Amino acid sequence: MAQTYDYQVQLRWSDADRQGHINNGKFATYAEDARIEWFEHLPGREANVPSSGLILARQEIDYHRQVLTQGEPGKRMVMKCATLSVGRTSARIREELWGEEDTSPACTVTCVLVNFDYESGRPSPWSDAERSWIESFTAQED
Amino acid sequence: MAQTYDYQVQLRWSDADRQGHINNGKFATYAEDARIEWFEHLPGREANVPSSGLILARQEIDYHRQVLTQGEPGKRMVMKCATLSVGRTSARIREELWGEEDTSPACTVTCVLVNFDYESGRPSPWSDAERSWIESFTAQED
Amino acid sequence: MAQTYDYQVQLRWSDADRQGHINNGKFATYAEDARIEWFEHLPGREANVPSSGLILARQEIDYHRQVLTQGEPGKRMVMKCATLSVGRTSARIREELWGEEDTSPACTVTCVLVNFDYESGRPSPWSDAERSWIESFTAQED
Amino acid sequence: MAQTYDYQVQLRWSDADRQGHINNGKFATYAEDARIEWFEHLPGREANVPSSGLILARQEIDYHRQVLTQGEPGKRMVMKCATLSVGRTSARIREELWGEEDTSPACTVTCVLVNFDYESGRPSPWSDAERSWIESFTAQED
Repeated sequence: MAQTYDYQVQLRWSDADRQGHINNGKFATYAEDARIEWFEHLPGREANVPSSGLILARQEIDYHRQVLTQGEPGKRMVMKCATLSVGRTSARIREELWGEEDTSPACTVTCVLVNFDYESGRPSPWSDAERSWIESFTAQED
Repeated sequence: MAQTYDYQVQLRWSDADRQGHINNGKFATYAEDARIEWFEHLPGREANVPSSGLILARQEIDYHRQVLTQGEPGKRMVMKCATLSVGRTSARIREELWGEEDTSPACTVTCVLVNFDYESGRPSPWSDAERSWIESFTAQED
Repeated sequence: MAQTYDYQVQLRWSDADRQGHINNGKFATYAEDARIEWFEHLPGREANVPSSGLILARQEIDYHRQVLTQGEPGKRMVMKCATLSVGRTSARIREELWGEEDTSPACTVTCVLVNFDYESGRPSPWSDAERSWIESFTAQED
Repeated sequence: MAQTYDYQVQLRWSDADRQGHINNGKFATYAEDARIEWFEHLPGREANVPSSGLILARQEIDYHRQVLTQGEPGKRMVMKCATLSVGRTSARIREELWGEEDTSPACTVTCVLVNFDYESGRPSPWSDAERSWIESFTAQED
């Protein structure tokens, strides 16, 4: 992915399940935190209301290999976030989880986000500034 | 415990950590759900705002033995809840986690709950009806 | 879905996030518990090692609408599980989350499961009995 | 607390519940990760098996005030860990959660840890080196 937003993920001891690897559901949590911090930088949005107006409509999670923590609770990985495509009121993004020495992502999360206006109860078009900013992060479909 | 409120807890696969037993933090979650459902029945409180006004000030968790799930995600246990003592604006309660064939609790959670008035920002006295109801569940200090 | 395996999901107070609805990652947890219990019934598998040999390779989660708990920690929903297709060493399944009065699922989870032989480190073919059993649950692609 | 082990805690969006503050159970998770990393440094223990032999027998959690995240998923807090007392086979420790600008801890966790020998199935005495190291971190009972 060419231009990415990189989020540092801190793993927790209890993220691993009885098989000793990170439980499948936790990757959704890592992806959530990464894209919330990423979209906090959306131009013109009020600070500290990160997910306001952004709805997760769909996510696809590909588990390329298991993530073993060996009990390191503070272990860091990186979630690399970029944009696949931008629609009028939505965006399709890709998030990849990388360990420090990985040569490929351990997990890939693809999300459909909808820009939602809670007042009208309807999807809301991105502003030009928002669209340009979202498009400035670039990923490619497989 | 003589008169208890019994809450059915459904265990989850991911509640267990890499040691194959229920992770210590999950017992706080079980205890929370049990006391919320219990206090939903507090006389005179509006339905569906269960924890409104109730603040957890302190909890003590004693792990008497580990809980092994052997991978049964829907396994049920019972959280037995009762009252240790009632103060003017607070209550001290005990919650015990029991498996079906247990002869003693696997885990005991003791909580200090404060009845809080969010409007005034201060602890609020129980009504007589509330106090009587809370006292009707009886546990004893060890 | 014609013939489904139905798993009762008990919601938890802490499953909801600060937006007051069930957090997106929890649906993966519900889906995990449902398919583990479902596949416990796979003919010929040893009891109590439910996910032994079954790897989640991919999941797609569609959030059709938010699930509001209104603070009911013990609220039940149903995860209806069925089979989309069976390959030589894998299966594609669908899981739908339904509330009691729902006329359509609140969330749909589609999973690719791989039957894995941890000894050889390779995917392993289903037996005929396993394949027949998996195929007896029937869902249809949209 | 005079000499502490400081663990950086990364908060997550989904750590907050529908009341908009960090859910009470998450503080147990933060405390767990902090003490596991702390005890990884126990002299003479094999690396990467942090909690091997250490059992949590009891924890007391005091919630001094709520922790509001305002939706900052990557927000950092510090868990300051120190020793209250050391027994022959156990230790009593204190962990305090501090925000960057806090003048007092938001939450205090007091734990009883038991050094356990899984082979004999019995508590095991600390070595002199372990005892000295544990005692070098100093907290005081209230």
